[in-house]
Amino acid sequence: MNYFTPTFVADELKAGNNILRMAEKAKANGLLFRPHFKTHQSVEAGEWFRSEGVTAITVSSVEMAQRFAGAGWNDITIAFPHNPHESEAVAALADNINLNLLFDNPVQAAAAASAVRNTTGFFIKADTGYHRAGILPGDDAAISCILDAAKESPLRFKGFLTHAGHTYRAKDPEQVLKIHLNSTQALAGMKARYLDAFPEIIASAGDTPSCSIANEFQDVDEIRPGNFVYYDLMQWMLGSCTFHRIAAAVICPVISVYPHRNEALILGGAVHLSKESLQIKGEETVFGLAVPFINGKWENAQGHDYLTSLSQEHGILQTNSPWAKNLKPGDCIAVIPVHSCLAADLLVAKNKFYIVR
Amino acid sequence: MNYFTPTFVADELKAGNNILRMAEKAKANGLLFRPHFKTHQSVEAGEWFRSEGVTAITVSSVEMAQRFAGAGWNDITIAFPHNPHESEAVAALADNINLNLLFDNPVQAAAAASAVRNTTGFFIKADTGYHRAGILPGDDAAISCILDAAKESPLRFKGFLTHAGHTYRAKDPEQVLKIHLNSTQALAGMKARYLDAFPEIIASAGDTPSCSIANEFQDVDEIRPGNFVYYDLMQWMLGSCTFHRIAAAVICPVISVYPHRNEALILGGAVHLSKESLQIKGEETVFGLAVPFINGKWENAQGHDYLTSLSQEHGILQTNSPWAKNLKPGDCIAVIPVHSCLAADLLVAKNKFYIVR
Repeated sequence: MNYFTPTFVADELKAGNNILRMAEKAKANGLLFRPHFKTHQSVEAGEWFRSEGVTAITVSSVEMAQRFAGAGWNDITIAFPHNPHESEAVAALADNINLNLLFDNPVQAAAAASAVRNTTGFFIKADTGYHRAGILPGDDAAISCILDAAKESPLRFKGFLTHAGHTYRAKDPEQVLKIHLNSTQALAGMKARYLDAFPEIIASAGDTPSCSIANEFQDVDEIRPGNFVYYDLMQWMLGSCTFHRIAAAVICPVISVYPHRNEALILGGAVHLSKESLQIKGEETVFGLAVPFINGKWENAQGHDYLTSLSQEHGILQTNSPWAKNLKPGDCIAVIPVHSCLAADLLVAKNKFYIVR
Repeated sequence: MNYFTPTFVADELKAGNNILRMAEKAKANGLLFRPHFKTHQSVEAGEWFRSEGVTAITVSSVEMAQRFAGAGWNDITIAFPHNPHESEAVAALADNINLNLLFDNPVQAAAAASAVRNTTGFFIKADTGYHRAGILPGDDAAISCILDAAKESPLRFKGFLTHAGHTYRAKDPEQVLKIHLNSTQALAGMKARYLDAFPEIIASAGDTPSCSIANEFQDVDEIRPGNFVYYDLMQWMLGSCTFHRIAAAVICPVISVYPHRNEALILGGAVHLSKESLQIKGEETVFGLAVPFINGKWENAQGHDYLTSLSQEHGILQTNSPWAKNLKPGDCIAVIPVHSCLAADLLVAKNKFYIVR
């Protein structure tokens, strides 16, 4: 394998351990485990999950559902509120696999209802505090409108689903646990009010910080974490994982060095890592952490060797440690990305994806 | 044309006018015009330049050079410091076209020198204030090392090249002009010191803000702007263009509406727009501006309808104007991206690119 240009490298052993741990946590808590595949977006990485017994998955777009259905996954939840313009595509998918949609507005439900021909599940998206998408707990009028729009169609109500993405803004693991508790209790409350009318509905939750840090899941039936397969700098800083559980890095060549300003230039910019950034205490805004890459494996951080600026292809590395100060043009480094999902999206699609074992 | 999922739309008439104006400015100032194709990355958009007489182009990666060489462009500068690992690929390109490389370190020059078989041009990258890449003005020792490494090879010194990217941080057009003047004077000074030894060298500059706002270019021989073909929200805010010159938008479907918080959800996230953001006075950090999209054309802004948050596929629109407050799921809106280059990179590669005339 060469690393001539930025390459997303996944460590199969670490990723496999992350999957095993999460699958065991789900099992120990009696939870359905429906991991989110938007993180890796790779058919090959998907097989790691299959070998841990995973049969049901989550995706975030119709295109992703089509891709994984083509790879043999036949139980898929599209955890993005239904796009009315993709109703035909969704109906075609539901002809062949067990598909669940997501609604938070009756227009979405009506569009899907008029298109699907085969039984198709749907969840109602609940806004349990993140305020990105979803129906507020207690807004039974909105829930009724959705249920009405789905009536007399092949759509079947499967339950309530939330994503407590506000855990990503938590200051420490205790805050994550507090958000997890509040969010799942609100979700359970919504489910409880509809359980008599729909006895088979479930409560589905599962952001990576909550699923990684929490051990109590009594209010939910299913978890859908995604990022945990690789983790990243953001999750490490949040306390979702140790450094040694991070299972992905972007390998980048060093292009130039500027000792007078303690910086180096890497080929690794916004089109490879995304412009996702992180505010780390005592640092500038950072776009990644550089660590040595030796014999196909990345090593521990040697110091505060952060990427402090990204443009389209350029990455500026602040050379803090002796290791970083000694880098030369042509050396290859590993960058722990701020957000592995976005780096994977950029590089897996370009076939700049490599698995180390 | 359908706009079922996020689609990068380029307005050929507006883009053509932007190209014509810049080509005329170059001609009026006796400048070589070598536009940067990293912005659009499209072979089809490249043809608009050819019809304005453009024969020489700039790109930012070897892969882009290969792609445009394949589309018949035979005079290409790769304006990213040479990656030693791509020396063979570069040598193969130089077998077939007039290629210019960029060096700011002798290791780069030595790697290229040992690989190229045919005459290959090179520029020395100058750091005239942006502090991203380049040799500082006055660092003749570093310049000598590069010239020495290139000696006795088919490499030919073509001049000094800068990118005054610090214009993007300017507060107003006057600051842009001041940066432009300082930067090009520094570049001209470097050229002057080597002109006796290399009588044919040139000075090449050309960030979009400077090239759009300035009318005086006496210190440079060549300009290489790229972003000007489309412009974007950032350039509009900088004063590089009027709103009516913006020639690209990302068309996104509205998925849901949340009147209780004056927000709407669009299918349009980091994987479509990039997480490039902008601090606009009196606003939160914004990720794009939503405007109406009617009969295949976008309209003026109706108010402060900004995207205030992006995740992988989700975009949150702050519905400020009456138009935005009336949006319904299934409506399509145009998003003026913060940075058109990064949105194009994401969507052109996925064939989500459409030209309106």
